[in-house]
Amino acid sequence: MIKFDCDYLEGAHPRILDALVRTNFEQTPGYAVDDYCKEARELIKKECKAENADVHFIVGGTGTNATVIAASLKPYQGVVCAVSGHINVHESGAIEATGHKVIGLPSDDGKLEADILEEYCRKYWADSTYEHMVQPGMLYISQPTENGTLYKAEELKRLREICDNYSMLLYVDGARMGYGLMSEGNDVTLPLLSELADVFYIGGTKVGALFGEALVIVNDSLKKDFRYMQKRHCGMFAKGRLLGLQFREMFIDGLYYEMGAHGIKSAYRVRDAFRKAGFPFLYESSTNQQFPVLPDTVLDILSEKFSWDYWCRVDEEHSCVRFCTSWATKEENIVALEEALSEFSAKEE
Amino acid sequence: MIKFDCDYLEGAHPRILDALVRTNFEQTPGYAVDDYCKEARELIKKECKAENADVHFIVGGTGTNATVIAASLKPYQGVVCAVSGHINVHESGAIEATGHKVIGLPSDDGKLEADILEEYCRKYWADSTYEHMVQPGMLYISQPTENGTLYKAEELKRLREICDNYSMLLYVDGARMGYGLMSEGNDVTLPLLSELADVFYIGGTKVGALFGEALVIVNDSLKKDFRYMQKRHCGMFAKGRLLGLQFREMFIDGLYYEMGAHGIKSAYRVRDAFRKAGFPFLYESSTNQQFPVLPDTVLDILSEKFSWDYWCRVDEEHSCVRFCTSWATKEENIVALEEALSEFSAKEE
Amino acid sequence: MIKFDCDYLEGAHPRILDALVRTNFEQTPGYAVDDYCKEARELIKKECKAENADVHFIVGGTGTNATVIAASLKPYQGVVCAVSGHINVHESGAIEATGHKVIGLPSDDGKLEADILEEYCRKYWADSTYEHMVQPGMLYISQPTENGTLYKAEELKRLREICDNYSMLLYVDGARMGYGLMSEGNDVTLPLLSELADVFYIGGTKVGALFGEALVIVNDSLKKDFRYMQKRHCGMFAKGRLLGLQFREMFIDGLYYEMGAHGIKSAYRVRDAFRKAGFPFLYESSTNQQFPVLPDTVLDILSEKFSWDYWCRVDEEHSCVRFCTSWATKEENIVALEEALSEFSAKEE
Amino acid sequence: MIKFDCDYLEGAHPRILDALVRTNFEQTPGYAVDDYCKEARELIKKECKAENADVHFIVGGTGTNATVIAASLKPYQGVVCAVSGHINVHESGAIEATGHKVIGLPSDDGKLEADILEEYCRKYWADSTYEHMVQPGMLYISQPTENGTLYKAEELKRLREICDNYSMLLYVDGARMGYGLMSEGNDVTLPLLSELADVFYIGGTKVGALFGEALVIVNDSLKKDFRYMQKRHCGMFAKGRLLGLQFREMFIDGLYYEMGAHGIKSAYRVRDAFRKAGFPFLYESSTNQQFPVLPDTVLDILSEKFSWDYWCRVDEEHSCVRFCTSWATKEENIVALEEALSEFSAKEE
Repeated sequence: MIKFDCDYLEGAHPRILDALVRTNFEQTPGYAVDDYCKEARELIKKECKAENADVHFIVGGTGTNATVIAASLKPYQGVVCAVSGHINVHESGAIEATGHKVIGLPSDDGKLEADILEEYCRKYWADSTYEHMVQPGMLYISQPTENGTLYKAEELKRLREICDNYSMLLYVDGARMGYGLMSEGNDVTLPLLSELADVFYIGGTKVGALFGEALVIVNDSLKKDFRYMQKRHCGMFAKGRLLGLQFREMFIDGLYYEMGAHGIKSAYRVRDAFRKAGFPFLYESSTNQQFPVLPDTVLDILSEKFSWDYWCRVDEEHSCVRFCTSWATKEENIVALEEALSEFSAKEE
Repeated sequence: MIKFDCDYLEGAHPRILDALVRTNFEQTPGYAVDDYCKEARELIKKECKAENADVHFIVGGTGTNATVIAASLKPYQGVVCAVSGHINVHESGAIEATGHKVIGLPSDDGKLEADILEEYCRKYWADSTYEHMVQPGMLYISQPTENGTLYKAEELKRLREICDNYSMLLYVDGARMGYGLMSEGNDVTLPLLSELADVFYIGGTKVGALFGEALVIVNDSLKKDFRYMQKRHCGMFAKGRLLGLQFREMFIDGLYYEMGAHGIKSAYRVRDAFRKAGFPFLYESSTNQQFPVLPDTVLDILSEKFSWDYWCRVDEEHSCVRFCTSWATKEENIVALEEALSEFSAKEE
Repeated sequence: MIKFDCDYLEGAHPRILDALVRTNFEQTPGYAVDDYCKEARELIKKECKAENADVHFIVGGTGTNATVIAASLKPYQGVVCAVSGHINVHESGAIEATGHKVIGLPSDDGKLEADILEEYCRKYWADSTYEHMVQPGMLYISQPTENGTLYKAEELKRLREICDNYSMLLYVDGARMGYGLMSEGNDVTLPLLSELADVFYIGGTKVGALFGEALVIVNDSLKKDFRYMQKRHCGMFAKGRLLGLQFREMFIDGLYYEMGAHGIKSAYRVRDAFRKAGFPFLYESSTNQQFPVLPDTVLDILSEKFSWDYWCRVDEEHSCVRFCTSWATKEENIVALEEALSEFSAKEE
Repeated sequence: MIKFDCDYLEGAHPRILDALVRTNFEQTPGYAVDDYCKEARELIKKECKAENADVHFIVGGTGTNATVIAASLKPYQGVVCAVSGHINVHESGAIEATGHKVIGLPSDDGKLEADILEEYCRKYWADSTYEHMVQPGMLYISQPTENGTLYKAEELKRLREICDNYSMLLYVDGARMGYGLMSEGNDVTLPLLSELADVFYIGGTKVGALFGEALVIVNDSLKKDFRYMQKRHCGMFAKGRLLGLQFREMFIDGLYYEMGAHGIKSAYRVRDAFRKAGFPFLYESSTNQQFPVLPDTVLDILSEKFSWDYWCRVDEEHSCVRFCTSWATKEENIVALEEALSEFSAKEE
């Protein structure tokens, strides 16, 4: 079975494993105060052109999201996001577990439109009973989104303006940041994110690390005592140097971008293969998640050789499925998929 | 200024104040274990034909909702409701403060349609990643709803079935229960609620008490240690007998229904006055909240003599406003409104 | 049965009931923005010589404590108190329910000694792993304490200094403030509390109100958006004017102090009667709670006519019990107790 | 510098790294439903003679503790432990963050004496106001304790009895389980723990894994929906197979015990070296943490070559320090310490 189910099917880039093996018996202090962590932090800050940022390493996106949100908001504030936002849908209530409401606004493709956000904020503050309603304190967006779409620089700037106008923080979930950065037409760089966001994270788990995310806190007011919050939310990793080693490896000479580019290149071959076979897509994704809409009969046949993530039913005879590529996607698997799809295409003609 | 803003503008029914004055210097133990509370509990259980129910007295609807939900759900469960549900909109995140997600489903008039609920549940349990999504553990409805509408007995039975099929508890918020019970065409009685709901409350604050709600726990599995939860959620009232005294007075000879009937009768005169003047309504309310849609010019004139709750803008020249009546609404105020509106009607013709 | 069990056995001072009756049919807006609340706020600020303070009214001490603590602390901070503090023992975990640890330090009589607090803080900040330990963010004391004892002005000043040195807020729980203020030898006034504390409350429930506590927020940094917190913690009372009316009545001409003085005068007669009969006390209380240590045989006899709160076993034949007086204690009941004890005394001789 | 600071200074046992490298490009499903996890679960259940247990893998002890406690307790229940328990001291309030009070009872050496626990429970349930106090719902112990001490089988049985008598769950934190199991005189085996505890965990992080703990849920009532709780508390590891691979390696042929034995053997040489030099110990530890009490002058000299964890001041001239050994402790480092200490001993004579 060739799997396109998700982007965390394999282990880690071999260079990362090498680094772990090579340093295995060094003795370093725990909890991410070792030299590897320090070096990784410096590399990331340089990459972001954010010399004054604080960088923390956390295991897992859900933990990162919950810790950041709990650390940033007042108890009576909530976090606004697209209704499809990971925090609203796929974290088993980890945000609400910290006492905060997730306020999901309508979205067709995973992106939150500025107008929708602005209208929400305007109405909220115009309501005379606003003290009885959760106060919007933060905007959460994901870049790329859960649907593979990307915000453009202009769109982010507009969202930032609205956040400023309505006293909201801007937090960017970058679980798949590496793929977004290397996507065609992308104009959102790490330095730009450091300019626009108050806090964001660069995902490792889905882009070639064994595990780990690098949180970049730009806004000074969010920096104090963050390590307490990490510990309180069970995200203070004992052998912290494992996180430092990985991010050091990924950012010392561009490995992170290389891995992102591989995932993107593979994704476009997958996308083109589906396109060529004449299948439409549910979302216009330019990243490593592709959402073709296929007849169930086609899925039946493909399922003999391939697996994927079932997304949703489109109509009685069609489904949308998610095909993910990653830093680890093998050429031969892409070729196999291309062949399988080309036969389809032939049959359909 | 004649106020129709809400149903908690005045104090309490004079008989209730009398009872407080009469018993003022009696010495009774605290925390609702006194004889007045016991008697009130028995009266309510009798009224509900629910001899095995547990009855607790809590101050305020938000506190009652938060305590019940926190007491009933597992940490990873959420509570489903109409998007307009009080817990979803107007409790400043009191439910999320207990760690639970509020899952708001679409609704036009405050009622949650059975089909919408069923489809939501079906999809939830069919999703292979359901462990990553908050589990729907309870259905919350309000009777009457925040929009003045009422569920019929048949509708409640259908919702109960869906709850049974998907292992959800059914909780009914009866902040304005007294008005619902006395509404024209209503077929939902306290005994029926005791049959269908796992837990519900009979509101006092908005129906003639100084304060206080009577929570009726029918489902045995929710009874154990509820008083701990009350204390933990700051809802264990020290001078408990004040709650007992009020509910005893309201249920000893039908005063609660009488007050509900007065509110309803007044509401219908308000409704008819708006109708007669030719104004439409945003919701088909048969209870003590009426939602006429008026030209802003009309509102300007009315505002010299009357006040109300501004609900929402309908179009550039019209707004929906809420007029509330209650157990305390004075005949003379209704007449004044009728007169004011009759003049309008005249002008419009 | 003559009850000395607690200080919330009766209703409220007749003047308070009168005020409720007199204003019963006035129409006032909800949620404590009415004129009675405004007037009560001004009276309290004047009494405290704290013109810039914010004053809020909340129902119940537990709710007040939980809301203040949740509003004031960062998520990773805890609240330090004497091990016997109400928040540590008798609130069913209401503080922990908001996510904060209660850090109980040793105390013999309900008061927290400055040296013990200072040593705790010193050690905490000297520990290299402090990020792994809950940060002390607030000191909670009660005045009077749960054991009837009182802090002197000098002691409070010393605690304030320590709070300043270790960046902790100072919060004073004044559930029985009225009795403390009128106690012999007391030198802690409301203006002094306003100088020393960041936030404190003046209890109504136990000092003659039907219910309600007046929270005084002195520290500017704690003022913003407090009403959201009140709503979130289920402490936004719908008919707010009932709270305003009561506190207005209590502070318009010194009724609060009068009621406190009555409770204290009664307490001293109770104390003297036990002393005269030769019984020792567990704590040196100068307020309305007295803790005599009595032979169980004596308790058996007294129990025919009187009731009280059982405090703890002292040895196999003696127990400590709590006798409370209040604003409502009747002369005749005191006399009855004096007589009963005088007979004892006679027997023992 | 030779470090004895803690037992998580190095990476992982080379066999574990080998397993990660060997399987790196296999494609396995996420979230611990892969075959490596399944196999690891079976191995652990067999080792525990607990065929019906549920086994889950979580990253980190704090996360495991918080998830288990939040999953097991009712909201109004607390967890009882020795005052020195990890959950009470070193988790930055992670337990309170889930809404539960940690009730620390006195302990001299990290173990909770049965009599102290029993007396606490007896008093709690005898108090007429128990509904106002957090209900003890679970006993938490660590085996070995934070002070290196161990419970004997008889002691555990007695604690179990008390838990049964007072309806408490028994949870055992086994962060250093591997060292306890291989300790001289230990009679507490994994099968015995499976008999006595409701739930416990076998620590990997401190005993040779890169990271990860294996939670064993024995009590059926705690099994349902645990994976939701894992996700909600940010402990659902994406590449779950990494956890499975590690525990499979550790339990397939006794590697876990082997590593534990190495740590213990090293610890005894450290212990003996201090003993021989005539230094006393703060606790009678038979496990991998040793707590010698040394003159500060000696520490000064040792600090040129060695590092450790400073524990506490004993008197003006002496300190207690913690020396940890582990699965990774090198013979040569032990020898160096022995030599250093032998010189001391010589000097002292």
